[in-house]
Amino acid sequence: MNFTFQAIGTIYSPFKTLEGMPIQPTGAIGVQGKIVMMPKYVEGLTDLEGFSHIILLYLFHKSNEFKLFVTPFLDNKPHGVFATRAPMRPNMIGLSIVKLQSIEDNILHIENVDILNGTPLLDIKPYVPEFDQYLDTRIGWLEQAKGEVDNKQSDDRFV
Amino acid sequence: MNFTFQAIGTIYSPFKTLEGMPIQPTGAIGVQGKIVMMPKYVEGLTDLEGFSHIILLYLFHKSNEFKLFVTPFLDNKPHGVFATRAPMRPNMIGLSIVKLQSIEDNILHIENVDILNGTPLLDIKPYVPEFDQYLDTRIGWLEQAKGEVDNKQSDDRFV
Repeated sequence: MNFTFQAIGTIYSPFKTLEGMPIQPTGAIGVQGKIVMMPKYVEGLTDLEGFSHIILLYLFHKSNEFKLFVTPFLDNKPHGVFATRAPMRPNMIGLSIVKLQSIEDNILHIENVDILNGTPLLDIKPYVPEFDQYLDTRIGWLEQAKGEVDNKQSDDRFV
Repeated sequence: MNFTFQAIGTIYSPFKTLEGMPIQPTGAIGVQGKIVMMPKYVEGLTDLEGFSHIILLYLFHKSNEFKLFVTPFLDNKPHGVFATRAPMRPNMIGLSIVKLQSIEDNILHIENVDILNGTPLLDIKPYVPEFDQYLDTRIGWLEQAKGEVDNKQSDDRFV
């Protein structure tokens, strides 16, 4: 069964190519970007400005095929794609939590942007610690990579 | 421009109708569910079991139309849909972070499930506090509803 989605806007950032990008928002502290929403959705942004952080769901639009095993940037061993945040997933939906600075009409100014320039936006949700924050977690293979993500940049492996 | 996605599996839970459901995983502590992955994606689950929590992206398959303003369960005033987690969004993608208990072949046993029975699954990502946890947040209109979510259940407003 197929489900069809459409972009609700476009994400702009300083990252014009997949190489040399931060691999998560934590590695993109201070990086400014903006979202240009399609005007027909602007009313849906009402009251969003009260939230300091927002969850963006977007299309990994430069990934063309999925792989069941990927070697992510934070390791040199392959892992199942669902145990990674790599873009080459069966449904190529990316998730980033960014800082919302301000909204002017259909433009959202955002910070900590680890997203490629020109990325189609699928959804915005408010980030709510009560819903989205879990302490006491295990993070499997990523345990050894803790702290590395801030310095790591992407290369051409997912191009 | 249209983007087409396909289910990678199905989420099963005790919730057969939209009425009386918990409205977030924090209101569904201890609720057991399972995911049946399509067999062709099973290898992609390799190493996922090391993670205690997983992010599920799924289709709000019982929502048929979007609204720009919704009155969410936690308030009696309407808000822009993107400032809520309500299902009637332009792209009806839901997000829940659940506890992963175990994986047997293509079956994932999960806990804290606030998802309707029979929901099509779009993606699984590992929950990584270093990527997904933000302290020092503002949560706008939800500030006043803090703590209420655990007791609140859904009604028929989004049916």
